[in-house]
Amino acid sequence: MDLKPTKPLSGFIELLPAGQRCFDFCAARMLDVLRRAGFSMLDLPAIERAEVLTDKDNWDEIENQMFLFQKGDTKMGLRYDGTVGLSRYVAGHLNDLVFPFRASQFSKRYRGERAQRGRYREFYQMDMDIMGINSLSTNYDAEIISVIGAALDSVAEFIGPNEALIGSRPFWDALFDYLELSADQKREVFILIDKKEKMGDADFAEGLSDTLGDSEKENLIKLVFSDGYKQFVNKSEKLDAAIDELTRFMSLLNDMGVKNAKIDLSVTRGLAYYTGLVFEFKLINHPELGTAAGGGRYADLAGKFSKTKIIGVGAAIGFSRIFASMLENNQIDLSRFSNPVDVAVLVMGDNNVAYASRVVKTLRDSGIVAVSYLDTDKKFKNQIEYANKIGARFSMIIGDDEVAKNVVALKNMESGNQETLSVADAIKKVK
Amino acid sequence: MDLKPTKPLSGFIELLPAGQRCFDFCAARMLDVLRRAGFSMLDLPAIERAEVLTDKDNWDEIENQMFLFQKGDTKMGLRYDGTVGLSRYVAGHLNDLVFPFRASQFSKRYRGERAQRGRYREFYQMDMDIMGINSLSTNYDAEIISVIGAALDSVAEFIGPNEALIGSRPFWDALFDYLELSADQKREVFILIDKKEKMGDADFAEGLSDTLGDSEKENLIKLVFSDGYKQFVNKSEKLDAAIDELTRFMSLLNDMGVKNAKIDLSVTRGLAYYTGLVFEFKLINHPELGTAAGGGRYADLAGKFSKTKIIGVGAAIGFSRIFASMLENNQIDLSRFSNPVDVAVLVMGDNNVAYASRVVKTLRDSGIVAVSYLDTDKKFKNQIEYANKIGARFSMIIGDDEVAKNVVALKNMESGNQETLSVADAIKKVK
Repeated sequence: MDLKPTKPLSGFIELLPAGQRCFDFCAARMLDVLRRAGFSMLDLPAIERAEVLTDKDNWDEIENQMFLFQKGDTKMGLRYDGTVGLSRYVAGHLNDLVFPFRASQFSKRYRGERAQRGRYREFYQMDMDIMGINSLSTNYDAEIISVIGAALDSVAEFIGPNEALIGSRPFWDALFDYLELSADQKREVFILIDKKEKMGDADFAEGLSDTLGDSEKENLIKLVFSDGYKQFVNKSEKLDAAIDELTRFMSLLNDMGVKNAKIDLSVTRGLAYYTGLVFEFKLINHPELGTAAGGGRYADLAGKFSKTKIIGVGAAIGFSRIFASMLENNQIDLSRFSNPVDVAVLVMGDNNVAYASRVVKTLRDSGIVAVSYLDTDKKFKNQIEYANKIGARFSMIIGDDEVAKNVVALKNMESGNQETLSVADAIKKVK
Repeated sequence: MDLKPTKPLSGFIELLPAGQRCFDFCAARMLDVLRRAGFSMLDLPAIERAEVLTDKDNWDEIENQMFLFQKGDTKMGLRYDGTVGLSRYVAGHLNDLVFPFRASQFSKRYRGERAQRGRYREFYQMDMDIMGINSLSTNYDAEIISVIGAALDSVAEFIGPNEALIGSRPFWDALFDYLELSADQKREVFILIDKKEKMGDADFAEGLSDTLGDSEKENLIKLVFSDGYKQFVNKSEKLDAAIDELTRFMSLLNDMGVKNAKIDLSVTRGLAYYTGLVFEFKLINHPELGTAAGGGRYADLAGKFSKTKIIGVGAAIGFSRIFASMLENNQIDLSRFSNPVDVAVLVMGDNNVAYASRVVKTLRDSGIVAVSYLDTDKKFKNQIEYANKIGARFSMIIGDDEVAKNVVALKNMESGNQETLSVADAIKKVK
């Protein structure tokens, strides 16, 4: 019989144990930041009805990008983000939740596109959202940004410093109005802006020219990328309102202690959901990772599910994008995650298993990571080699003598020193 | 436009925040037991190639029970257990892992059958496996049982005490040989035994009679359920060997401090994988949940993936089966999970947001769960009502006076007492 493949499907991640420990350690640290900020962790289904995942009119377009399947009469598929399930959940539990409601999620999402280099088809994102009924101060937008910053800061020893880039959807709306673009032109130009970083300056300029055919307008739009909003002060009421909102917000961020934020109007966050300020985080030492986190404000989060108007501000951290990439590329020093075992308990002979098991239980109950080697017929040489290979800090040798005297032989695997001790003294030594 | 449904698909679980906190708390406790026992946590893809999930010859049979889909030329599907991915992973990383290798997994699995009462289509299981190359002492079977017991004991305050029931596949093989059953009869009777609990005694007896048509043999098989192995000592060498293995194992469990185990030969764990001793855990106070955990030994775990013989002993705890069921049926007192917030910071006026934000950061940095209410134009009455609703232990009121004096007003939400304190003193009080 042919052997089956042992590699996972392309676009799917699996880590070796030390990398996984690092991944889990960073997730736990970041989730603890969210917990202290009062976010309630939600764990929603990975499978949703197709009608929840997409509106019927873009079904064909989106079908290629998702994992979809049918059971009986029901079309369903794997979620591609955390927002779609959250909207459904919140709309279904308006009376069970207290608003403003703070929700966090840390879960796998799926994209069904053909796998490309560096694109995952299964990946973790860490979401946080604050939702209010009918109103929600923009102070919460600043709060979300400060919490993301704190979460990324909590693992800075691994990923380095981060910065927040703040964009404004209303600014572009106002500018397009000021330039008197048609509805079609607005849409086309917005798509170009969203793709600018990927397409490069030359293609962007060509795209603008194809769409607008008006070098004055094209130059004004390009000016935003070199010069920001400065040239557009006092041009129209709508522009001034958008600029005012943005500058007030930067000052609020500063007041809230967010020191690493700057305006970047090229940040638009695509076409979906967002209606107000938008933001992205980048890792300063890891430009190759692109956007580390992104989010913004949506005026009507759950309009498809409820007549109640839910205003939200939320963001997703690209957790796999950051950590799986860095781990796969050996960009994180794993030495502190390589040796999780405190004590390897080596048992010489089956008749000593009972005694050894009681010792192991005592060790584990005192919080020590203790692994027992239970192939008791193996020679001492093989057993100590096992202790070495798993990187145990200590080995504890239990043979007939130790059992007779109610002691253990504790060997420091680094120094090689060995002592005969009571179990209680051995525990003190290990700790 | 019609509103879309807010309920998840049937067979999928979603909990309210307090229930989710309980679920996560119990998972963390149990996983910590596994970590201290030296198990390495793995997080494998939820999607596998179809050829990995199933052998081609039972494709049709199993297709209805799974979520399967096709991308390009590749058939794939959602995993239904943790073992299939683990086998693939271990076979693919023989040189990266140290054996005996201890792996744990806590992940969602999927069954695509039509949803039935109490049957989940998406559910968590917590797996632990110990794998050796070519040999693995049965001491490890006992170790796995003791670790599962310790994991379930760690959440006994929620689920009550547990017991382990030990069965033996070799015993039935030996008994079938002794009774001179044909290969077909062996298979049929084994299926009947596996389904006995579900089908009831009368149907079981009828099934036996249909299959064997020999009342003496039927009675001998039934005798196992009333009387255990006793009648079968000294009947055949093979029976004696199986009985000897089982009784030695019970004595080992006892030596290892597992006091809640007993022989139950009706435990067989179905047809898949297992080749030696098998076991199940039940929750003594929750017979309605059925099997809480189950596992056993497999002589050739990864034969489909590798020519290297990997012997494993492993088990899965039905985590959702236990906790999602109990939470959905209100069998767990959630009061200690209902009020996760230590301090609600209430901010009177937008000009005090900067000061409040610095206070909030200090609170969170000292490990306090602090939620800020940032709709600063809301009246004090609304703000304190929010603090009440989220069950905050304290509220911290920050208005113009507090900012001017560099203090906070700390209100104990239970007693109603309010004091003006420095931030440092307020933190001491909260802690």
